[in-house]
Formats: sequence, structure tokens, C-alpha cells
Amino acid sequence: MSLTVVGSVAFDALETPFGKRDKLLGGAGTHFALSSSFFTDVRVIGVVGNDFTDAEWDVFKRHNINTDDIERVADGKTFFWRGKYEFDLNVAHTLETQLNVFETFQPKPSEESKNSRLLFLANILPMLQKEVRESSKADFVAMDTMNFWIDSMKDAVIETIKVVDCVIINDAEARQLADEPNIHKAAKKIMEIGGLRALVIKRGEYGAALFTKDAYFAIPAYPLESVFDPTGAGDTFAGGFMGYLASQPTIDEAAMRRAMVYGTVMASFNVEEFGTERVDRLTHSEINQRFSDFKKLTHFEEIPFERATSA
Amino acid sequence: MSLTVVGSVAFDALETPFGKRDKLLGGAGTHFALSSSFFTDVRVIGVVGNDFTDAEWDVFKRHNINTDDIERVADGKTFFWRGKYEFDLNVAHTLETQLNVFETFQPKPSEESKNSRLLFLANILPMLQKEVRESSKADFVAMDTMNFWIDSMKDAVIETIKVVDCVIINDAEARQLADEPNIHKAAKKIMEIGGLRALVIKRGEYGAALFTKDAYFAIPAYPLESVFDPTGAGDTFAGGFMGYLASQPTIDEAAMRRAMVYGTVMASFNVEEFGTERVDRLTHSEINQRFSDFKKLTHFEEIPFERATSA
Repeated sequence: MSLTVVGSVAFDALETPFGKRDKLLGGAGTHFALSSSFFTDVRVIGVVGNDFTDAEWDVFKRHNINTDDIERVADGKTFFWRGKYEFDLNVAHTLETQLNVFETFQPKPSEESKNSRLLFLANILPMLQKEVRESSKADFVAMDTMNFWIDSMKDAVIETIKVVDCVIINDAEARQLADEPNIHKAAKKIMEIGGLRALVIKRGEYGAALFTKDAYFAIPAYPLESVFDPTGAGDTFAGGFMGYLASQPTIDEAAMRRAMVYGTVMASFNVEEFGTERVDRLTHSEINQRFSDFKKLTHFEEIPFERATSA
Repeated sequence: MSLTVVGSVAFDALETPFGKRDKLLGGAGTHFALSSSFFTDVRVIGVVGNDFTDAEWDVFKRHNINTDDIERVADGKTFFWRGKYEFDLNVAHTLETQLNVFETFQPKPSEESKNSRLLFLANILPMLQKEVRESSKADFVAMDTMNFWIDSMKDAVIETIKVVDCVIINDAEARQLADEPNIHKAAKKIMEIGGLRALVIKRGEYGAALFTKDAYFAIPAYPLESVFDPTGAGDTFAGGFMGYLASQPTIDEAAMRRAMVYGTVMASFNVEEFGTERVDRLTHSEINQRFSDFKKLTHFEEIPFERATSA
């Protein structure tokens, strides 16, 4: 029962219609690790600068997240992103990106990280994802990517896909990767790249879909009237998904379906407050309660129809 | 067990990336009636011109749809719509609209139509919808509408909503009607207009959601690799939904949830071929098979999570 993630650890500054924050703990690696820590033992491979303080380390500590593989650069600053969301929170604008120590990030997995049963390659340069995957002995490896890499180095993205078990991306990325507007045709093309056991497509407020060799599974999103900050929702979903799988003895279709729901549940908490605030103080009973609510809101009975009169 | 629909009966001309048709039987009333005829006895209130031939009447006859309340205007032509879909079938362009006999359409429900247990007001002028509703003794009345009426006569749309039990619209219309981008807040505002027992929000390839006073239910769409013609999908959904409800002794939450799935199933067949072609030759066993497939592709087990180690 262990899981390693390689990805960004960052500071975010945000403006949303509901408020403004100048410095929030963020980054894909952070959101993923925090979410998955509710299900399994997690290690993070990443890099931070000298501006990373005890307040930030404490968030990791509180959730027993192992940070031995987070490199600390004494004369550098942590990756910083400033963004703004419109009233329609689906529309995000990047106002500022300072890569800082992340620009020359070279992951250095320890033996313990290499021995993790599961590995998640968050959105970083595809060549680095491939290196980390190839140094790892993990049984089940999943990856994310983004439009920027698909645009600028699609071949490298595809070479990385070939060495993982699962791809977790959003629907626009799936369409772009497959160059195909129909999401089911796009999924088929991505599954045919080779080696994949599963493809998870995240659709934001519309839910998520799981494609495996023999099955298709789809769920809606958890209904939320108040979304405060969508930053990190995708990584929190991936953290719930991979964290839950890490807790299961067998990674089969049934476990992956439950993992999809746990991912959905974790992401729904993440967006309720800024940054990591909500997930940081989450409890297992809140998670199980929302899973149970989700079961109810998707439940219907199968009763075959018989026409009483002639049709 | 009976259902009446008031709505357009039309000819459509279509161009899609998959082909072109010059004259297809179409219209909201037609798609709705055809779909619901698999579940209940249906009557259509509408109007056609002298260009409506036996070939068209035969489609209604084959499905035992009562057409006594379809007025035939001897010196007029049937409502005609010409449209074009882009490669991404979500993008539709209207190339030509000839309202013809539909322009001065004045619904004249017979006693039999007024005595229907259920009534569906397809997308026509909201004042006409209200008139038909007020002349009807139906127990359960649902309505559709469109962006054009919400834009140009929102008050009239709202007055009609006040006298029906259920609104069935797409998500862009719901956001527009409530002037609210969050779909859950929008739904709450629409439910508060008064009198509504249910609000169904259709989300195309993303599925559909059902809002009732005490519950929320959401389902994904049925997965389709080949969508040929999305025209009429919404009305076919509504036909499956209302037709199934008409077949049930009690219209409760459980029946409405199954009706959502039957609506989804019917719509999924409709888009597989042009116009009414696919639904016209559909069988009950195909419908039940797809319902059963849908149950499988949304199924997951609820197993509360317990962390083995400390979190």
C-alpha cells in the first residue's frame, strides 16, 4: 500500500469572483498527495525554494506525506502561478508564471520511491515523466499531461503513454491528443497507443468517464452550488483515484469504478474553498458520507418495459 | 395511460459531415410522439400543409399515433427547416426557416386531447403553450422552451412555467432563464418560480439531470461513437421521459428516474440515423437491451473506506 507522485509543489495567487489570495500552497504534486493521503501512504518527488516555510511543510506533515524526495534549493524560489477566474469558473486566465526552481527540475527518486506499488506522473515535461516511470518498479503507473505538451511535443507524450498503465486527462486534451471531436472515438484511439489498461477522462462539472479494454463507465459530477476555486480539482481527483487504488489488493474494473467515485468526491471538496484549505481538514466520515450521497443521486432501478397495449 | 403533445410537425433538410437529406419528416411534435409511442397511447396537436403525403402519415399510423388533432391546411405548406451541422455536431447552423402554416398555428385540442392524463407542450409560443395547458385536464404537464422565447418574452415563459408540473430544457436555456452560470443555482431559481414538481436539464453528450423538491439525480449520456444527426434528440428524450411516465400508475421520484434513463436511451437511438429513420423501426427488446447496458455502465458498488494506517 504505497503511492509516489512526481509533480509540482508551488505557490498560487488567485483572483476569483469570490475573493482573492496572494499566496496559497498549490501545485499538482501537492493537491494529488493531499487527496491520496486519505487512502494510502504517499511520497512526493518535487522541488521547492527557500521561500517554502514551516507552514507549508506542516500541511504535508499533518497528512503523513513523505517529503524526503522534495529537493530544497537554497538559492532559489518556489514555482509560482498567478491566475484569475471569471464569473463562469470554467474560464481561467494565467496572469503570471514564474517557473523558478521548477525550470531545471530533475526528479531524483529515492529507492523508497522507486519501490512504491503505484506511481503517478503529474503534469511535467513528458521526457521527465518517462524517466521517472522507467526508474520505478511500480505495478500500476498513471500519468497526466496538458495541451501545451500535446501541442509542442506530441511524440514525446505518446512515447510516455506507451510506458504507463493509465492516462488521466480532461476531455479537451483527449480530443486534442487523438485529433478527434467524438470523445468515444478519441478514447479508442488513445487506448490503441498501446499498453494502456485504462483511460480516465475528466469532464469538470459534467463528471468523468473510465475507458478500459472491455468496458465503459461514466458518472456525473457531485452537485455543488458554490464552487470557490477550481484550481487543483483535476489533481485532487487523480489523488482520490490513485490513492483509493493503492488501498485495494487488486486493481480491477470494480475497484477502478469505486476509485472514480472517490476521485469525484475528493475533487468536490477541493473546489469548495481556496487552495488546499478544505481538503486539509477533511475527515474520513465526510468522505464516506459524500460517497454515500453520490450513490443515492445516481441510483435508479432497472425494470424492463412491457407495453400494455400494442405499439 | 395516455399522452398528448402539442408541437411542430415539419420537414427538415439537413447537411451533416456524414451526408445530406433534402426532405425528412421532422418537428418537435413528430419526434416526441414517435418516441413516446413505444410506451403509451399518444395524440398530436399540430398543423401541416398540402405537401404532407401518405408516406408521412404512414409513420404516425405505424406507431398508432392519433393524428385527429393535426389540422390540414389545404392551401398552405408544412413548416420547413434547413440546417447544417459542423464536424463537431454540437455546432448547428440554421440555413433557412419557412414557418408556413405554423406561423398562424392555433392549437385546437379535441375533448380526447383535453382528457389525456399527461400533456407535453413542445417548443412553441409560450402563450399558446399556456392556452393548451389551461384547456387540459391533465394530471402531469411538462413543457419545453427555447433561447429565442427566453430572450424575447421571458415573462410569458415564466407565466407558462407557473402552470406546469415539469420543465424539460437544455442547460444553456436553464442558465439563461435563471441568469445564473452555476447549473445547480440556476435549477434552484427555476424550481422557485412556483408549482414545479420537477426540472429536467438536458446536457447533450454530457447526459441529463433531474431536480425535484427533495432530490437530485444525474446520469451520463449513452456512449455513441457515431452520431449522424442530432436533430430531434431533445424531443425524443422528452418523448421517452413522458411516454414512460404515462405508462406508470404513479409519477414519483423512482418512476421519474427510470423515465430519465428511457429518455436517454430513446435519444441515443434517434441520433444514430437521419430524421426519424432509426426510431421508426425500433423494437422494445432493443430499448430494454440498451436500458440494461446503461445500468451496467453506470454501476458501482458502495464500499465505505477505512484507512488501514493512520491518516
